[in-house]
Amino acid sequence: MKQFEHTIALDAMGGENAPDKVIEGLKLFLDQDRNIFFLLHGKEEAIQKSISKFHIPKENYKIIHCAEEIKDKDSVRDAIRTGKETSMWKAIDSVKNLESDLIISSGNTGALLVISKLIIKMMDGIDKPAIAGLWPNLKKTSVVLDLGANIEFNEKNYLDFSKIAAELYRVIFDEANPSVGLLNVGSEEIKGHETLKNAFAQLSEAKNNFIFKGYVEGNQIKDGNVDVIVTDGFSGNIALKTAEGTANYITTEIKNIFSNSFFGKICYLFSFPIFKKIKNTLDPRKYNGGIFLGLNAPVIKSHGGADALAFYYSIKLSAKILRGKLISRIQENFRDQNG
Amino acid sequence: MKQFEHTIALDAMGGENAPDKVIEGLKLFLDQDRNIFFLLHGKEEAIQKSISKFHIPKENYKIIHCAEEIKDKDSVRDAIRTGKETSMWKAIDSVKNLESDLIISSGNTGALLVISKLIIKMMDGIDKPAIAGLWPNLKKTSVVLDLGANIEFNEKNYLDFSKIAAELYRVIFDEANPSVGLLNVGSEEIKGHETLKNAFAQLSEAKNNFIFKGYVEGNQIKDGNVDVIVTDGFSGNIALKTAEGTANYITTEIKNIFSNSFFGKICYLFSFPIFKKIKNTLDPRKYNGGIFLGLNAPVIKSHGGADALAFYYSIKLSAKILRGKLISRIQENFRDQNG
Repeated sequence: MKQFEHTIALDAMGGENAPDKVIEGLKLFLDQDRNIFFLLHGKEEAIQKSISKFHIPKENYKIIHCAEEIKDKDSVRDAIRTGKETSMWKAIDSVKNLESDLIISSGNTGALLVISKLIIKMMDGIDKPAIAGLWPNLKKTSVVLDLGANIEFNEKNYLDFSKIAAELYRVIFDEANPSVGLLNVGSEEIKGHETLKNAFAQLSEAKNNFIFKGYVEGNQIKDGNVDVIVTDGFSGNIALKTAEGTANYITTEIKNIFSNSFFGKICYLFSFPIFKKIKNTLDPRKYNGGIFLGLNAPVIKSHGGADALAFYYSIKLSAKILRGKLISRIQENFRDQNG
Repeated sequence: MKQFEHTIALDAMGGENAPDKVIEGLKLFLDQDRNIFFLLHGKEEAIQKSISKFHIPKENYKIIHCAEEIKDKDSVRDAIRTGKETSMWKAIDSVKNLESDLIISSGNTGALLVISKLIIKMMDGIDKPAIAGLWPNLKKTSVVLDLGANIEFNEKNYLDFSKIAAELYRVIFDEANPSVGLLNVGSEEIKGHETLKNAFAQLSEAKNNFIFKGYVEGNQIKDGNVDVIVTDGFSGNIALKTAEGTANYITTEIKNIFSNSFFGKICYLFSFPIFKKIKNTLDPRKYNGGIFLGLNAPVIKSHGGADALAFYYSIKLSAKILRGKLISRIQENFRDQNG
């Protein structure tokens, strides 16, 4: 029997068009890489049907039937109280039981955060997970966190998550010395709040596992001069959503101008190969996957509206995180710092 | 002698390429509108030279010679201690002395905030100014604040600035019932901090001078469904800068793809009228001008890097604010609420 490098638990039921998009995304992954095994959590019949449609190789998966699923509209409280038979819960449980190494879910973010914390537990000394994301920039890709798990950060959060996210960056991008910056506002007079200033002072003095670059402003995130950008979950979420809204605004305005005149339509058709390239370059699906950090195992949140290709990218990211041994690297790091 | 509707004090020395860009911007404004008088603060010789170059009509200005100027790199403390002979200080002073009704400066933001507060004073019951900006969106333009003056907001700040910004919106866009939203993060589990929740509760119950639309997420700013978006200066500044960075990222990537191949260059040339239209639609210069709110007179901060056209737009905005009687409208509003 084939030995697999790792096992990934998929919550096959979360998000739009599940389980089809999950199984099709899996198919795209297995076309390139057959060395990972998958536990597919969800309604057996629906998954089976989807598997026949997309021809998933038998040896790469096992279905774990789960009668229930957590809905996006469910409150976190309800999800915890009544969620034990759901695909999300059982997928997370499989990591605790050492049947799998990582979970991917497109389901309810709040429920995924809280149930993961409940079952997998936080790493020693970390209180709450942070959500990290991959942001394309003018040079390459950066890691930005926290994208919304912690409304406020204390000093320790800034320090811990700088360290943890530096390891994440190292694992994903194979960069020995990633740089880390703290997101702050610009003008000198009004620079940052006390917690942030204290974190800055401590990071400037500490021996870190990264190059500390000090403060970064919002417009610099997309420059690509800093690998990891750390901020509290409130401003991080606002940065994320504002970037999404701005990208949508600009591309919509451009589309409208091309399609509002006959000449514009001709220009679009003439330049079609160029537009295809632009669409590919700016495709957000390549960066799909919020990475929960600080837990004893990696948990990946795929965007609820993600399609098969986007889901494929979140599997690819997950394989990289497992092969790079992210969790043990982080643990070592904290051991080194304490010892 | 001609009677003017209003007098605007210009700090002619702040920002890049001053005073030329200020005087050229003034010329663009006077070509359309001769009913405003300008006090030009700065080095007389330099301003005079610039005036001959751009042919400013004599009856529309007076030069107030100021030997000094505040530099962008000056600390706010130094600016206050040694700034009394500077163009910025004297421009602000002219409002206090009722010689002018509004100041526009492209200089040091921190100094402009602090000196304005020192000289013009805050409105009764308001502690500190907030900075509002105009943001284009898919439907029209919204007002977003605070863009960086107050790192933290208390409940009262949310309430006061909702009211004040609603008046601003009404004056600029002639909209009887503007809508106001509070910027917040998305997921239900992690929705907002206590201060924000309390502000939400109070705004839901209060009799407001606007339609309260509740929470808005970052991606909705650009949708155009809410006229005024209120947030603390930390996340507002991060939203502003992230939007700028994202716009720059997307337009740079698109430019690169068109210019990286011979075919791309041909497409660009062929579609040139369309690109001209896009550039015009997305031109940030049309929204130049940070509006300081909460002071006893309007103070407009033009972007330091703004050119003549951008400066012209900040003068146009200023004229609208004066003609709409923003300050007395705000004052009335607070009187009504208290009485």
